Amino acid sequence: MARFANLFSLAQLPALVLAWTERSAGGLTPLWGFCCSFALGLAVAELLRRIGRLDGTQIFRRETIAVAGLSWFLAGLIGAVPFWASGLLGPIDAFFEAMSGLTTCGATVLGSGGNIDIEATPGSLLLWRAMLQWIGGAGIVLIFVALLPSVGVSAKNLLSSESVGVATDSYQPRAVEKARYVASIYIGMTALCAVMLVLVGDFGWFDAACHAFTTMATGGYSTRASVGAFESLGGEIVLTIFMFLAGASLAVVATHCRTGVRCIKTLIESAEFRIYSATALTLVTVLTISLLRAGCSIGEALRLAAFNGVSVLTSTGYATSDFQAWPPTATLCLFTAMFVGGCSGSTAGGFKQVRLLVILRLLGYTLRQFVRPKTVERIKLDNEVLPAAVISTILAIVLLWGVTVIAGAVLISFDERLNFVAAFAASASMVGSCGPAMTLVDPSGASEAVLQGGAAATLAGTPNIGPFGGYGDLRGWTKLLMSVQMVFGRLELLTVLALFSPNFWRR
Amino acid sequence: MARFANLFSLAQLPALVLAWTERSAGGLTPLWGFCCSFALGLAVAELLRRIGRLDGTQIFRRETIAVAGLSWFLAGLIGAVPFWASGLLGPIDAFFEAMSGLTTCGATVLGSGGNIDIEATPGSLLLWRAMLQWIGGAGIVLIFVALLPSVGVSAKNLLSSESVGVATDSYQPRAVEKARYVASIYIGMTALCAVMLVLVGDFGWFDAACHAFTTMATGGYSTRASVGAFESLGGEIVLTIFMFLAGASLAVVATHCRTGVRCIKTLIESAEFRIYSATALTLVTVLTISLLRAGCSIGEALRLAAFNGVSVLTSTGYATSDFQAWPPTATLCLFTAMFVGGCSGSTAGGFKQVRLLVILRLLGYTLRQFVRPKTVERIKLDNEVLPAAVISTILAIVLLWGVTVIAGAVLISFDERLNFVAAFAASASMVGSCGPAMTLVDPSGASEAVLQGGAAATLAGTPNIGPFGGYGDLRGWTKLLMSVQMVFGRLELLTVLALFSPNFWRR
Repeated sequence: MARFANLFSLAQLPALVLAWTERSAGGLTPLWGFCCSFALGLAVAELLRRIGRLDGTQIFRRETIAVAGLSWFLAGLIGAVPFWASGLLGPIDAFFEAMSGLTTCGATVLGSGGNIDIEATPGSLLLWRAMLQWIGGAGIVLIFVALLPSVGVSAKNLLSSESVGVATDSYQPRAVEKARYVASIYIGMTALCAVMLVLVGDFGWFDAACHAFTTMATGGYSTRASVGAFESLGGEIVLTIFMFLAGASLAVVATHCRTGVRCIKTLIESAEFRIYSATALTLVTVLTISLLRAGCSIGEALRLAAFNGVSVLTSTGYATSDFQAWPPTATLCLFTAMFVGGCSGSTAGGFKQVRLLVILRLLGYTLRQFVRPKTVERIKLDNEVLPAAVISTILAIVLLWGVTVIAGAVLISFDERLNFVAAFAASASMVGSCGPAMTLVDPSGASEAVLQGGAAATLAGTPNIGPFGGYGDLRGWTKLLMSVQMVFGRLELLTVLALFSPNFWRR
Repeated sequence: MARFANLFSLAQLPALVLAWTERSAGGLTPLWGFCCSFALGLAVAELLRRIGRLDGTQIFRRETIAVAGLSWFLAGLIGAVPFWASGLLGPIDAFFEAMSGLTTCGATVLGSGGNIDIEATPGSLLLWRAMLQWIGGAGIVLIFVALLPSVGVSAKNLLSSESVGVATDSYQPRAVEKARYVASIYIGMTALCAVMLVLVGDFGWFDAACHAFTTMATGGYSTRASVGAFESLGGEIVLTIFMFLAGASLAVVATHCRTGVRCIKTLIESAEFRIYSATALTLVTVLTISLLRAGCSIGEALRLAAFNGVSVLTSTGYATSDFQAWPPTATLCLFTAMFVGGCSGSTAGGFKQVRLLVILRLLGYTLRQFVRPKTVERIKLDNEVLPAAVISTILAIVLLWGVTVIAGAVLISFDERLNFVAAFAASASMVGSCGPAMTLVDPSGASEAVLQGGAAATLAGTPNIGPFGGYGDLRGWTKLLMSVQMVFGRLELLTVLALFSPNFWRR
C-alpha cells in the first residue's frame, strides 16, 4: 500500500512539469496544487510504510478487502488536492472530481454550479484529470485480476472458486505474470489510441493523450465539454473502436497471452465477448431506428447512435449529442445499458456482461424446467458447468445492484429539484461508473436539440445532469453520497459493503 | 373449464338484472350487451364441454398450465362483450377494460380518449366492472392455492417442492378443502367490507358493494374518478384496512383454518406477513415525510400517505391524490412498491413480499460468506431450510420480472408521446397489476395539485396515465400489449411464457 501511494505521487510528475510551464494560468495556481499533493502523497507513503512494518508480512483476506476499499478513498483525497489547492474547485467539488476520475466514472462538476468551464481549465489540471482515470482504470483491472479475481467473476475465474473470495496462495506467481501482461496491453493500447487519434482524427498531441488515457480507462473525461467539438468523424470512429475494445475483457486476453495471436481468438470465442458484441449491436440498432424516427438522416443517426451508445454501454460517458433529449425508447435503452455495462476483467462499469449472460441462461433453464420438470440439465458457461452456489452469488450481486441503485435514487431525490428520471439515472450512472446521467428535457425544444445538436433545455428549476451538463449545481451531501456510490459500483458492491459490516471488523 | 365458463356467465346475472331496470341509460344499451355476453358465455361453455369429453379425464401438468393461461384471455373476450355491445367502448378499449378488470389490474380507459366519464357510466356496467375484478381475484387465489401452488411460492408451499411445478396428486383432497376455505374467507371479507363502508364510511349500498368487490380483489375500479370524491375519512380508513388485509396471504389463513382463531396468529407470525407490514410501514412513513416537506399538514400527509401508499403497495390502485405530482422521493418509493406488491397467496400483484424476503436473506448471506468464506450457514424461511434450487427459481422470477418490465417499457415507448417515466411506470404498473401509472407533471403546478388536491397538468403533449387520468388516449397496439402484460404479471410470468415457448407444445 505504501508502494501504491509512492507510485501515485510519482504519477503526478508529468502534470507537475506541465504546470511549471504555465505558471499563472488565469489566476489559478496549479503548480502549488501539485506540489502540495506530491508532498502529501510521499508523506502518506512513508506513514503507511512505517505502519506496514509493525504488521506481519502475510496478506490476509480481510486485509486485502480493506486495502482495496480504503485505498480508493485515500487516493481520492490525495488526488483532489491539486484541484483544490490550485483554486479551481471547492473542497467537496475537488473530492467529487477526483473520485469520479479514479473510479473512471467521469461525472464532472466543471462548467456547472459556478465552476470554471472545461475549456478554460489549465492544461496541467486537465492532464491530471485524465491521468486519474487512467490510474484508476489500471488499478481496477489489476485488483480484479490479481487481488480479488473471483469478485470480478471473469468467465474463467468464476469457475475456480465456489464462493466469492480471494483464491488460495498457490495462484500468486501466475497472478504477477498476468498482472504484467495486463499492464503491457493497457499501456500499449493507450499509446496506439493516442497515435491513431493524431493520425486519423486530426487531434493535437495533448488532446490525443488525454483522450487515449480516458478512453482506455472507459472514464470519459474530455478536454472539451463535448467530443463533438472536435468535429472529427475519424476521431469519433477511433474512439468508438477503442471504447469497445476497452470494454472487452482485458483479463481474458492477458490469461492467454502466452498463446500469442491465438489469445484474440480465445477472446472472440468467449461467451461473454459474444453477448457483449450482441448487446452493443442491438443497442446501436435500436438507437439508430429511434433517431431515424425523430427525423435524423441515416448517416447522422448511425454516427450519433454508435458513438453515444458504445460510450454509455462501456460506461465511458463521452457524448456528441445531448442524448437526454432523444426519444423515450432511446433514453430507456441507454438507461438499461448503464446498468449492464461492459465485460468483467475490463475497466468498464455496470454489473457486467457475464452476469447478464448467466441471468439469461438461468431464465431459459427455469422456463424449460417449468415446462418439463423432469428434464436433467445443467447451466454451462464456456463448456464448464456452473455450480449452484456460483449462480446464486452472481444473482445476489445483480439484485444487490438493483437495490443499491434504487436506494441511492431515493436518497438522491431528497434534493427535490432532481425529478424521478434525474435521481434514478444519476444513481444508475454513479453505481455503473458511466458519468453523465439524464433528466427530462422540455419537450418543446427536444427535437431541435436532437436534429441541430447542442444542449436541450431542462424543465424549469431542474439542474442539468445530462451529458452536456454537470453535477456542480447539486448540494454538497449529494455529491459526497455520489462519490461513495461510485466506489460501491467500482468495487462490485460486496467489497465496500463488507467494510461497513460490523462483522467484518470483529476478530 | 366448461364449468368455469358457465359460472362466469351466471355471474353476469346481477348486472343483467340491474341493466333491466335502467333500460336506456344515456343512449347506451347495457341490457343488450349483457344478453349477448350471457349467451356467448353459455355457448362457449357448451363447446368446451364437448371438447372436454373427447379428452381423457386426467389433468396433466401442461394442460393445467395451458388452461390457466388461455382461460384469462378467453374470459377477457367474453367479459368485454357488455362494454362493447352496449356502445360504451370500442372493441379494443372494451377488451382492455375487461382484461384490466379480470387481472385485478384496474387500469381504465373511461374518462380519457373521448370515452365517457366513470360518473356517467350506467350502474350495471360499473357493477360488471367491479365483479370482473372480484371474479378475477377469486380466480387468481384459487389457481395458486389449488392448481399451481408452487408457482405462487407461498412461504409454506415453497418448501414442499424443489422445482416450480404442480405438486403430486396426493395433495388433491387437501387442495379442495383449502379452496373452500379460501372462497369462504374471500366472500365473508367482501361482505364485511361492504357493511363497514356503509356503516363507517357513509357509502350508499351500491357504491359499498362495488368498492368491497374491488378492494378484496385489490383491483381498484371505483364508481367515481377518485375515491376522494366521497370525502369520507371513515371510508378511506376502512378501505385502507381492507386493502392491507387483502394483500396479506389468504392462503396461509386458509391452510390453518382448522386451528380456528390460531390461524390469525400463524399469519402474523409468518415471516412474509412481517416483512409485508414492515414494508407498508416504511412506505407510509417515507411518503408522509415527503408530503410534509412539500407543505402538507401532518394529518393530511398521513391520510394521503396511508391511503395511496397502501393502495399502490397492494396493487389496488385507488387514489385520493394525483400522486404523480408528489415530490420525487415519494414517486420513486411508489414506483418501487409497484414492483414488490403484496403477499403470495393473495390477490395482490407485484413479485410478492416472500421473494423480497428471500432476496434480502440471500444478500445478507452472500455478504457474510464474502467476509468469512468458511462459515457454514443455510438460508431459512419460517424455520425451514431453503434448497438452492428453490432460491435460484425465486431469483430467476424476480430477475425475469425486471427484464419483462424493462422490455415492456421499451415497447410502450414506441409511442413517443409517453416519456421515460410514463413508459417505465406504465410497464411496472401493468406487470404488477397496480392500475394507475405516472408521468412527469409540469413542475410549476405540481405543488398546488399536492396541497389543494385535484389533478396536476402533465407536460405538453403527454397523455395523463396517472391516477386521475386514463389509458384511453393510447394507441390500440399499446393497449393490446398492456393487456398481455397484465396476464403476464398476474400469472407470475412463467405460466404465460411457457405458452409462448415452442417446446411447450411439443409432445
